[in-house]
Amino acid sequence: MKIQRVRGTRDFYPEDMAIQSWIADAWRRVSLRNGFLQYDGPILETMDLYRAKSGDEIVGQLFRIDSRSGEELAIRPEMTPTLARMINAKVQSLPRPIKWFGIGPFYRGERPQRGRSREFLQWNVDVVGTDDLLADAECIFVAVDLLREIGLGPEDVVVWINDRRLMAAVFGELGIPESRHLAAYALVDKADRMERAKLAAVWAESLGDVAGFEAIEPLLAVESLEALRSCDHSVMRTPTVTKWLAELESLFLVLQDFGITEFCDFKMTIVRGLAYYTGCVFEAFDRQGKLRAVLGGGRYDNLLRALGGPDLSGVGFGMGDPVVLELLRELNRLPDPHAALDVFVVAADDESASTAVRLVADLRGRGVRTDFAYRRQAVAKQFKAASARGAERCVIVGTETRERDTVTIKDMSTGAQTQRPMVAFLADPLASIPPSQNP
Amino acid sequence: MKIQRVRGTRDFYPEDMAIQSWIADAWRRVSLRNGFLQYDGPILETMDLYRAKSGDEIVGQLFRIDSRSGEELAIRPEMTPTLARMINAKVQSLPRPIKWFGIGPFYRGERPQRGRSREFLQWNVDVVGTDDLLADAECIFVAVDLLREIGLGPEDVVVWINDRRLMAAVFGELGIPESRHLAAYALVDKADRMERAKLAAVWAESLGDVAGFEAIEPLLAVESLEALRSCDHSVMRTPTVTKWLAELESLFLVLQDFGITEFCDFKMTIVRGLAYYTGCVFEAFDRQGKLRAVLGGGRYDNLLRALGGPDLSGVGFGMGDPVVLELLRELNRLPDPHAALDVFVVAADDESASTAVRLVADLRGRGVRTDFAYRRQAVAKQFKAASARGAERCVIVGTETRERDTVTIKDMSTGAQTQRPMVAFLADPLASIPPSQNP
Repeated sequence: MKIQRVRGTRDFYPEDMAIQSWIADAWRRVSLRNGFLQYDGPILETMDLYRAKSGDEIVGQLFRIDSRSGEELAIRPEMTPTLARMINAKVQSLPRPIKWFGIGPFYRGERPQRGRSREFLQWNVDVVGTDDLLADAECIFVAVDLLREIGLGPEDVVVWINDRRLMAAVFGELGIPESRHLAAYALVDKADRMERAKLAAVWAESLGDVAGFEAIEPLLAVESLEALRSCDHSVMRTPTVTKWLAELESLFLVLQDFGITEFCDFKMTIVRGLAYYTGCVFEAFDRQGKLRAVLGGGRYDNLLRALGGPDLSGVGFGMGDPVVLELLRELNRLPDPHAALDVFVVAADDESASTAVRLVADLRGRGVRTDFAYRRQAVAKQFKAASARGAERCVIVGTETRERDTVTIKDMSTGAQTQRPMVAFLADPLASIPPSQNP
Repeated sequence: MKIQRVRGTRDFYPEDMAIQSWIADAWRRVSLRNGFLQYDGPILETMDLYRAKSGDEIVGQLFRIDSRSGEELAIRPEMTPTLARMINAKVQSLPRPIKWFGIGPFYRGERPQRGRSREFLQWNVDVVGTDDLLADAECIFVAVDLLREIGLGPEDVVVWINDRRLMAAVFGELGIPESRHLAAYALVDKADRMERAKLAAVWAESLGDVAGFEAIEPLLAVESLEALRSCDHSVMRTPTVTKWLAELESLFLVLQDFGITEFCDFKMTIVRGLAYYTGCVFEAFDRQGKLRAVLGGGRYDNLLRALGGPDLSGVGFGMGDPVVLELLRELNRLPDPHAALDVFVVAADDESASTAVRLVADLRGRGVRTDFAYRRQAVAKQFKAASARGAERCVIVGTETRERDTVTIKDMSTGAQTQRPMVAFLADPLASIPPSQNP
């Protein structure tokens, strides 16, 4: 009986793993060069942590475990509750601003669906302990820095930005009481994915007694800061809306200093579905609008307090691996996942087997990526194995090595060969082989 | 209410994470230079996978999840079953030998105990699809290559090696039937951790009816290949024992070619507790014998078939992070976990804030690890922040930058300062600052 993997989970064979490592390496490299420090938490948390953040309904979306010690545990579906718990536990001793990033696996407990994995890798970037606009701008910059790092330009992706305080002001001017704002965010969040008639109907059902859909409809179409500025909707001239529009304009000025305005624009329907955002919110999408969000985040003021901590504002975003890799695949820009070797050591005859092993060990000890064939094989077959493994060069040990301590080096891309004394080769194993010496 | 982490799990604050990343990076670097390809599987597997490998009793040691879809799932406690499942699923298309490594988190479902984490990071290295002795030797070399890479020498650690076929021959000569060999391995495995009288009693209870403890006792003390060769125990001259001793001597000859015999020796009590080993077995320990095994592995012939696959022999080992980090901590050889920045950008006055942000963005885009202070602060305070963050140099932008497009660069270790045109600085941001120009 062959045992299958769990539905909705993923096996990473080396070719897939190379892609996975490539994106995770880019996340880490970009985070570090932006001055963020890496952290991680366990994959298991108490169910209470998720209840405290998201209420009882979250329980149905988690993988739940009842441990033999009577603990009620869950596999983490997202990083933010763990981040808040960890910061709360040491809040007095952590220097601020806390600029942290994490990379790890997360699980959704829902039924497996076609095209939707129950398991994903996610990058989380957060700045906690400051409400400075520069932190919001820096998070957006880190997101764009990553997108550029993996080869995406402003013609491929766009970061849509909005501010919940602006939206709250608009809602207020339209007569929607604060108690209904979360419902309004949820509807606005769905606006781009719902037909106009359906949206109007749902809006009427949910908010029709306090605000008509016609009042907000013209605003929902706004997709740039210029359009927002010149929008002649009556709410745009009220003091509260004007104030938060100015704040948003300040953010865009900092984004201009960061040199990423080509990637960024305003969009009224970006509000994020999650309850805990309180300020700037943003999501990146492919320009063609084919895929779900590549990344999303925003500012949260009350999250740490909700989990038993102090009043500490934070801003951050998360980016999973599925959508960005799907986008790169569509654009045909995934890297070549072929693993490479620096050197493949070829034994020309049976007497050279020991010499070959000694050379392999020596090269690896010097940090040179080296491999060889376990079984005695014809030299041609060893060359073939070397090519299959992506070796840049072969080093052939044989009679000449035993008698004169020299080796033959073959460049596997040009076919050029040269002989070198063993000491000279070891002194610079990756030296290029001049094509002129091609026999 | 502050929410606690799950008992027996670990939070990795940046300083701990730096250590964790350091060991994981070493594992990956060493694996790649030894010609291994990285793979990974999901953290969730079906309970059936672990039952098929280890029988029903394993269920009590796992974190068990009953999903809403009625699946019986478990969090992986080890990598080998996943490896076997993945290889079995594609066994016809994978080029052999399959040289794979994996790095990831694993969980034990047992009650949390003091000093024993329910969660650990583990490195797994395997060669599948060959029974060549070179594969056994190469696995041991990879283990030693890692130990050397993290600064451990033969005076710090030892790899003890044995062979289950040699032990089976010894057991056979002593009259222990094959059906009792697993019980005998379990006792031999515990021999070093049990008092002599206790061990003799347990041995008598479990195997006394077929073989006396006195017969095997002199052999259990053997701790080197020389001692084994010269051992005058009667079983050592029987043909089956002689045959497997010769095989072990061949392995040590290859280890000599690999240049690691200083690290390696024979030890009779190393047999590995796990049921599935069938050939060479090995474990690394600290020389002082204070800690549990740093790593352990061996050859397994029947594992893939037990999980529904073909007859394919493999050899491999696993190494968790807890013991090796404990050893390095005891030896005071853990690396300095301080994160480093290449550049900290200092704004000398309020008018330079935009210039500072533009320079930060430019440097990060060039791959330079750069940070800055969000809030306007005195220059001295910014220098202090730069030191705290481990910045190698500060770049000060101010009046001179606006008027003459020059910046001041300060080396944070020597205190040396110099002025450079902005273009010259950007052309080589990491250039050293001559101490002679120290003002």
